[in-house]
Amino acid sequence: MKKGLFLLFVLLSGAPAYAQTPSAHVAAAAPRAAAGGPAPAAAPVATASAPVAGAAPRASWIWYPGDFAIWLSAEVENRRAERGAFFPPFWKLDNPYILVDFHKSFVLPFAEDVHIFSEGQYNLKLDGRMQPSSSVVHIDAGPHDIDLKVFCRDRVPAIFVSAPDLVSDSTWRVTCEDKEWIDATGKVSDKSGTVWMPAESWGFSDPAATPSQYKLATQPISPVSVVRQSNGWLLDFGRETFGYVVLHGVHGNGPLHLYYGESREEALSTDSCETLDHLQVSAGERWVAPVSRAFRYVHLQTDLAIDSVSALYEYNPLPIRGAFRCSDTLLNRIWDVASYTLHLATREFFLDGIKRDRWIWSGDAYQSDLMNYYLFFDSSEVTRTLYALRGKDPVTSHVNTILDYTFYWFMGIYDYYLYTGDASFIRTCYPRMVTLMDYVLGRRDANGMVQGLPGDWVFIDWADGLSKKGALSFEQLLFCRSLETMDMCARLAGDTISLYGTLARRLRTDVLSRFWDPSRGALVHNMMDGHLTATVNRYANMFGVLLNYFSPAQRTSVLHRVLLNDSIAPITTPYMQFYAQEALCALGHQDDVLQQIKAYWGGMLHEGATTFWEKYDPAEHGVQDYALYGRPYGRSLCHAWGASPLYLLGKYYLGVRPLTPGYASYLVCPTLGGLSWITGTVPTPHGDIQVYCNRSELRVTAVPGHGVLRFASRSLPRCAEGPVRKMGEGLYEVDLDKAGTYTVYYEVADKDVVAKLWER
Amino acid sequence: MKKGLFLLFVLLSGAPAYAQTPSAHVAAAAPRAAAGGPAPAAAPVATASAPVAGAAPRASWIWYPGDFAIWLSAEVENRRAERGAFFPPFWKLDNPYILVDFHKSFVLPFAEDVHIFSEGQYNLKLDGRMQPSSSVVHIDAGPHDIDLKVFCRDRVPAIFVSAPDLVSDSTWRVTCEDKEWIDATGKVSDKSGTVWMPAESWGFSDPAATPSQYKLATQPISPVSVVRQSNGWLLDFGRETFGYVVLHGVHGNGPLHLYYGESREEALSTDSCETLDHLQVSAGERWVAPVSRAFRYVHLQTDLAIDSVSALYEYNPLPIRGAFRCSDTLLNRIWDVASYTLHLATREFFLDGIKRDRWIWSGDAYQSDLMNYYLFFDSSEVTRTLYALRGKDPVTSHVNTILDYTFYWFMGIYDYYLYTGDASFIRTCYPRMVTLMDYVLGRRDANGMVQGLPGDWVFIDWADGLSKKGALSFEQLLFCRSLETMDMCARLAGDTISLYGTLARRLRTDVLSRFWDPSRGALVHNMMDGHLTATVNRYANMFGVLLNYFSPAQRTSVLHRVLLNDSIAPITTPYMQFYAQEALCALGHQDDVLQQIKAYWGGMLHEGATTFWEKYDPAEHGVQDYALYGRPYGRSLCHAWGASPLYLLGKYYLGVRPLTPGYASYLVCPTLGGLSWITGTVPTPHGDIQVYCNRSELRVTAVPGHGVLRFASRSLPRCAEGPVRKMGEGLYEVDLDKAGTYTVYYEVADKDVVAKLWER
Repeated sequence: MKKGLFLLFVLLSGAPAYAQTPSAHVAAAAPRAAAGGPAPAAAPVATASAPVAGAAPRASWIWYPGDFAIWLSAEVENRRAERGAFFPPFWKLDNPYILVDFHKSFVLPFAEDVHIFSEGQYNLKLDGRMQPSSSVVHIDAGPHDIDLKVFCRDRVPAIFVSAPDLVSDSTWRVTCEDKEWIDATGKVSDKSGTVWMPAESWGFSDPAATPSQYKLATQPISPVSVVRQSNGWLLDFGRETFGYVVLHGVHGNGPLHLYYGESREEALSTDSCETLDHLQVSAGERWVAPVSRAFRYVHLQTDLAIDSVSALYEYNPLPIRGAFRCSDTLLNRIWDVASYTLHLATREFFLDGIKRDRWIWSGDAYQSDLMNYYLFFDSSEVTRTLYALRGKDPVTSHVNTILDYTFYWFMGIYDYYLYTGDASFIRTCYPRMVTLMDYVLGRRDANGMVQGLPGDWVFIDWADGLSKKGALSFEQLLFCRSLETMDMCARLAGDTISLYGTLARRLRTDVLSRFWDPSRGALVHNMMDGHLTATVNRYANMFGVLLNYFSPAQRTSVLHRVLLNDSIAPITTPYMQFYAQEALCALGHQDDVLQQIKAYWGGMLHEGATTFWEKYDPAEHGVQDYALYGRPYGRSLCHAWGASPLYLLGKYYLGVRPLTPGYASYLVCPTLGGLSWITGTVPTPHGDIQVYCNRSELRVTAVPGHGVLRFASRSLPRCAEGPVRKMGEGLYEVDLDKAGTYTVYYEVADKDVVAKLWER
Repeated sequence: MKKGLFLLFVLLSGAPAYAQTPSAHVAAAAPRAAAGGPAPAAAPVATASAPVAGAAPRASWIWYPGDFAIWLSAEVENRRAERGAFFPPFWKLDNPYILVDFHKSFVLPFAEDVHIFSEGQYNLKLDGRMQPSSSVVHIDAGPHDIDLKVFCRDRVPAIFVSAPDLVSDSTWRVTCEDKEWIDATGKVSDKSGTVWMPAESWGFSDPAATPSQYKLATQPISPVSVVRQSNGWLLDFGRETFGYVVLHGVHGNGPLHLYYGESREEALSTDSCETLDHLQVSAGERWVAPVSRAFRYVHLQTDLAIDSVSALYEYNPLPIRGAFRCSDTLLNRIWDVASYTLHLATREFFLDGIKRDRWIWSGDAYQSDLMNYYLFFDSSEVTRTLYALRGKDPVTSHVNTILDYTFYWFMGIYDYYLYTGDASFIRTCYPRMVTLMDYVLGRRDANGMVQGLPGDWVFIDWADGLSKKGALSFEQLLFCRSLETMDMCARLAGDTISLYGTLARRLRTDVLSRFWDPSRGALVHNMMDGHLTATVNRYANMFGVLLNYFSPAQRTSVLHRVLLNDSIAPITTPYMQFYAQEALCALGHQDDVLQQIKAYWGGMLHEGATTFWEKYDPAEHGVQDYALYGRPYGRSLCHAWGASPLYLLGKYYLGVRPLTPGYASYLVCPTLGGLSWITGTVPTPHGDIQVYCNRSELRVTAVPGHGVLRFASRSLPRCAEGPVRKMGEGLYEVDLDKAGTYTVYYEVADKDVVAKLWER
């Protein structure tokens, strides 16, 4: 299994071939219209292959990069409420820059009227001279410089400029300090120390729809059952959902009490349900609750007469581009429920769960990122989430206060670049990467490794008795990949003097030599006072596989002595199941993982799940399934990290993944894992790759770029669309060098031979 | 003249004797009632000697330290308008933390109802448990912990808590990230990494008067003349003032154009006046302009019929504690006009000038600080201004973008501690000092010195042809005192590992050895590529005197070869006159300085000044006096730095200054400088020191602490209140060890002997 090494090499070599990918990426990442709009299917999203060059210039609202995400995330994260009490985060919340200068040098072919809109008060300078405030400015033909400096505290300073030949877009430059002073004679400074960044936009193309008005989309939904309770009703919406309760025909004014439940029991438990609202309702045809909540059940209590109750489903209208179907109906149901789970938790940002936190957690978001590449392929959701997690300088704590979550943030950038090829984001974000890594580097121990220091939450997983003491091998592996990410991004950003590559190579060597215990054939969990402890568990070992840091012999040892060893403590959260199963898939054990998915996720469905959970222990049943954090309904029953089959089925069964940034080259390695047939769609920046595979036929619809179809066959395969290349005993490849469908007739190979496909 | 060295020693030794001064300081710094209140004389200010201990607890609005200043400064600095166009600053504006946790551990003797008010939405935790939102919480008797976490974006997150035995005050602790997570069992983290700061307050003791409502006071004023103009009137308010134009008896609705002038010419120049407002007026008894402006003259243009026009004078109701009178009526007038000038520019913060910038400039504010110690002795005005200038981390430019202004910021802290003894502010501010100094240290050249780098404005002074190239001796001297300040504050803050003292000593030695030219007997202005240039000017040399970095021989050389040498380019701004004259005073040349003050400031009065100016060249007259920055009325005619006689007359003629922090010990060294008599008052944290001096009698009213009266006498002096100590030929001292009046009968000595007083 050398793919990791190969990938790393390609990423780090900065091969110029990938320089062409960003523009293609832009098309896929093109933003949809501001929400409040229609249902997903009707949302005006640029198609993946839509041409960009030559399009007529279109004005957008623009702002300082990342500031909309930082502003919006504070709005979103402060919506958490615990039984009616406002429950803000425990980390530092940042604000956008409150004073931002927007600059553009341009040439007008004709004199034009330029229309200016802003969020906040602005100062206009044309060719360096201050102008009276005016929403329309007449500018003569010829070359010009325009500066709009905007002050706004409670929203994001933003502008919208529109003229036939001058529009606000990402070609504008922005700064939070223009350093433009004048001397005693009135001469302007040279501004040579001013740091300009490219403006950011996100498809807000209506001057009247300001960024601060952004809202998710809604559509009406009705309960599937309404049961009269004493003093109210219990509504069942049939499955987990999210939205605003709507009353129809309210007679009279008075109090209304709403108790929400992801389970029937929770909604009925007015004492212990996690979310509730005590509201005042006034008479009228239609009344909409002022806040949206997660629920399957809503328990209303009121003395008012009400004709009927429904809800407004609130959602992010992202088109679902990925698809999966196979010969196993349970697996199909699991994929559908996973897709719905991720869609519910993919809101303004990738949230952890929709009932309780409604916060952005880096470790959770990292998994949503990866699933996103197999479901929505929405780039802006990833970058918004990354910007929100990162916040502003100075760095005063780990991301979400969690040591590992800082590293997942870097790893999210690594994968973002691999999947999208968006070097422009990397360059803009790079200074924030540097200061976060500075924070990490400043907290290393004498061995150059990280340990939990005062104020650091060392999380890893919700697992009883898991030691967080000393230097943990798990954290060092994530740190190492974070340094590799920095090295890759330093090259993209033109930072030629950084030492991240050296640090990464040294750390990797140190970690493997210090934590690997040859007698146990595995990485040991932690080291105290320079000595390895006796603990071996799955965490570091599965990441050692995933990051491809092991030798072939180490991989084999870890597979048998840890991953497939029942005496090693099992994983009990879908969160870490993600990596445990991915590690097995990466070693070619798709058959085993398939059975695990069916058992574990099938177990949740058997318990009545309509979305996947934050935590699931197959030994627990009924109301036991709802408890966490010492509270009877503390568990989230719609948690993004529960949707990992989306990723596993797309990457390791449909077998599609990028080999070089932005799918410039990619691999398709369909793997049945014991199924009779599988089929599905994987979105890329260049369009959708479609895969069909049964025991004798492979069909792939390729996209522009260099694809490779890799498979194992018991007999000599045939392909009319291109030559079949033999790669080893029973192993073959077909180059997918043109868009279109390739069909291969083959004979499914034994499990052992298939597993070899994943060793390459 | 060894005072500087002595002071430095005392400051740096951190003698425990001064640990007692902060509480006394608090009384003097006790905030006045929120403005909008009565005229200065009636403002309820705690008297300097008011007892603090034992007072009944009083609730105040509290917030994160510095955040009110940072919030308010953005409001204030964005009020600049240039001929109606919004004109924001060119440096980064910061925002308060938007999410702040307020914590207090307390014991209630009885069960009490606790009333809670906030700016922003809050979360309440009592003894670690979240409570439903409620403005009144009943808390049982006993020990408790309370946390209020407040989210607010557009104002300062602030709380007001009131119960008989629990009030919000500066004993509460605050943080912008409580890092209080819970584990899977519900257990709360140890919060060991949380950085708590003391809450800040400023006398907002009315729960209904929130900090964001803060406004300066106003009172009605009338013009001294109203002259009909075509289509309007020209009003003369008799002297420079600041306020809102008020119309009485407006008949009809329509446009009103206001052209403001610090001079008659400016108000009449509708094309070139610096400030104007185009407004819509509606009929009514009384109409008040929505914005306040600086003016002596207001030129109204309107077609509306208006009965009469007046104004609302807007001011900071600070009591004026300092006083000065002498036998010279011109000097008395200069002191009065300087006092009025400083009062006008002492607003929400120490502003530079009231007409144009209305910004906070560190170099200007540093001088206002020093004058303040001789006029208002208002501590909160100083700390608010320091916090506003500093802003938030990260540091991305020099203060106001100006290299020297960063150093004045540090020097302002040095003097603030010397005059007030407020160690609590130093400890709270210390982390911000460290990060600003880190920025400076990161920009040193190979010699460990500072030069202007891209983006740095090297200001020094408005002076034609002044080179800013290479390493400037002036900047190194300020850098050195800044490092000495850091060393002093590190000790106060308990930072035992910093190296600021070492850096300061090394830099001081280097600067004096590299820049001192023995052949010219002076510091050379700058060094290019390692070689001294041929330029000698006053800047570095006068600071070398003021900072007491010279040997006695160097002082004498600088006095004659630079300060009293007419072939060295003269100073042309009141800004640098401040230091030029202080340097002469510090060398005992009060007689010369007195003549300079009368000539220079008297010259402005002769030109018609009613407040002192940003710039004055005695060779200019009439409208020439109004021009600057290439604009005919660009000059500010009410500029704080024009008021320096306040400081010079208080420190070097009344001769009062602290010897150890917070006036724990102090010196009174009355110096007639050729006058027949002088008298006056100098405020201190312990009360007002009153001084009277003629050629045969000295009278000092001492305050608690250890004072020393130092004087020169031709014959043996007499004092009934304490022994007279002979200190040298004709030099004497009397200890002022108890509050009360000391009278000394003496015989005024010759100028040369008096000058010796200042050499000690």
